[in-house]
Amino acid sequence: MTEPLFQRVAFIGIGLIGSSLARFLRREGMVGEIVACARRQETLDKVMELKLADRVTDDPVVAAKDADLVMIGTPVAAYAEIGRRIGPVLKPGAIVSDVGSVKQTVIRDLSPSLPAGVHFVPGHPVAGTEHSGPESGFADLFHDRWCILTPTAGTDPAAVAKISDMWTRAGMRVVEMDAEHHDKVLAVTSHLPHLIAYTIVGTATDLEETLRSEVIKFSAGGFRDFTRIAASDPVMWRDIFLNNREAVLEMLQRFSEDLSALQRAIRWGEGDKLEELFTRTRAIRRSIIEAKQA
Amino acid sequence: MTEPLFQRVAFIGIGLIGSSLARFLRREGMVGEIVACARRQETLDKVMELKLADRVTDDPVVAAKDADLVMIGTPVAAYAEIGRRIGPVLKPGAIVSDVGSVKQTVIRDLSPSLPAGVHFVPGHPVAGTEHSGPESGFADLFHDRWCILTPTAGTDPAAVAKISDMWTRAGMRVVEMDAEHHDKVLAVTSHLPHLIAYTIVGTATDLEETLRSEVIKFSAGGFRDFTRIAASDPVMWRDIFLNNREAVLEMLQRFSEDLSALQRAIRWGEGDKLEELFTRTRAIRRSIIEAKQA
Repeated sequence: MTEPLFQRVAFIGIGLIGSSLARFLRREGMVGEIVACARRQETLDKVMELKLADRVTDDPVVAAKDADLVMIGTPVAAYAEIGRRIGPVLKPGAIVSDVGSVKQTVIRDLSPSLPAGVHFVPGHPVAGTEHSGPESGFADLFHDRWCILTPTAGTDPAAVAKISDMWTRAGMRVVEMDAEHHDKVLAVTSHLPHLIAYTIVGTATDLEETLRSEVIKFSAGGFRDFTRIAASDPVMWRDIFLNNREAVLEMLQRFSEDLSALQRAIRWGEGDKLEELFTRTRAIRRSIIEAKQA
Repeated sequence: MTEPLFQRVAFIGIGLIGSSLARFLRREGMVGEIVACARRQETLDKVMELKLADRVTDDPVVAAKDADLVMIGTPVAAYAEIGRRIGPVLKPGAIVSDVGSVKQTVIRDLSPSLPAGVHFVPGHPVAGTEHSGPESGFADLFHDRWCILTPTAGTDPAAVAKISDMWTRAGMRVVEMDAEHHDKVLAVTSHLPHLIAYTIVGTATDLEETLRSEVIKFSAGGFRDFTRIAASDPVMWRDIFLNNREAVLEMLQRFSEDLSALQRAIRWGEGDKLEELFTRTRAIRRSIIEAKQA
């Protein structure tokens, strides 16, 4: 049994990521009490059924009061309102952290509401599956994945160290970077892939009825991998795109140019260009396998 | 032990698919003798080392002579030349089949070289992994996947039945359709997804050096799934795009229009449009899971 890292942890929003962290903290005896907050009663019932929390509430104020760590895991568009509500009740010395996939707007939306003496450590554990909700979580989700922390100039180093320690114990490799850089990197590695997957699956759903049923039947040829990504939580992803607009649009522009070039090569039968690109992309796969992120 | 379905089977090109079929036929005692043909000595050595064939040769003529079934599994651009070479030595009553991912050009390229009395059954087992080469195959690759046969008007029904029987025993669900329809369906379910994956991975490799190493590190956010697809065999895929040009370009056009619409929604902050699409695409994933193709 480890000495508890936090006496009381409040999860505001408890889906795949939050519930996985709750499971881990629990299993390792790293937390005294867990309070979970969600908007829907169904989620709260599920959390109690799975024994992920000691108490549940639909009121973030109730959850955040007296918590040593407030971990926010809602879609990012909800942060500003959550900040306004919990700001006044936060305990001095409390740490507020989050798991959102964008960081610049999160800092913009949350920071102004947090009183002096409360430490904000914006974070992003880069892990996940296509499933959502507290029933989808598991304690080992974070194992061997990366966690990015984006503390601002004024963030207390001791608070950053504590959050870093928590994710490290959960099996993550923790790295710090500034929020702007985070948003740019994630635009390529996560946001653009999701956007593309959503688009192609959408294109397929718009096909004539007969063709559409065959698309499902023969999806093993590549399509089904996209459907897995395009099954991710709709509201969470809506918010990500709206809150990382500039970086996503820039990457999308680059992608569209590259796609046009490939389209042209196919139209003109330029096999050498195709083979050259396909050989290059294969090498990247090898790098990912070597980096143990496959 | 089953009665052998074929006395002698020649594999011309023996990669992931061919070697998986060879393993299966072997295991079930469904074949008397297997002859494997490949261009590279390295491949032939691997085939012998893995005991996938009784004999190997780099000459398709030697392989096809006296074979009861000639199974072609090379990149599709090689078919015309293979047909010209093996046509004269094929045994009367022999069946020629293939596993290529496009069917119209395959029929166009191969049919003229096959003498009367030889039965051509164009086929496409829709199964695979991102790995290639005879060492990547496994006998259960076909289990619960679909196999599409695209016989032409003149094809002997008995030959079709025999190939259908073979794939069925290998665990596949076999369906017949015309070649043009096949190429259209596969353009959506397989060729477009590969094209998109190759493009996005290419876009990432063109990033500035520092960003690129981070893309590998943080690939777990979605990108790595694309790299898996974009690691598929370069020459095989070059040939697929060049040989299914019209259908691929048409689907690509639809995709590009849909992507532009999404881009516009992000630029103008139209969250409702994003959420609506993301909810629709999630439903398709459920259909695929229900169809047991996940």
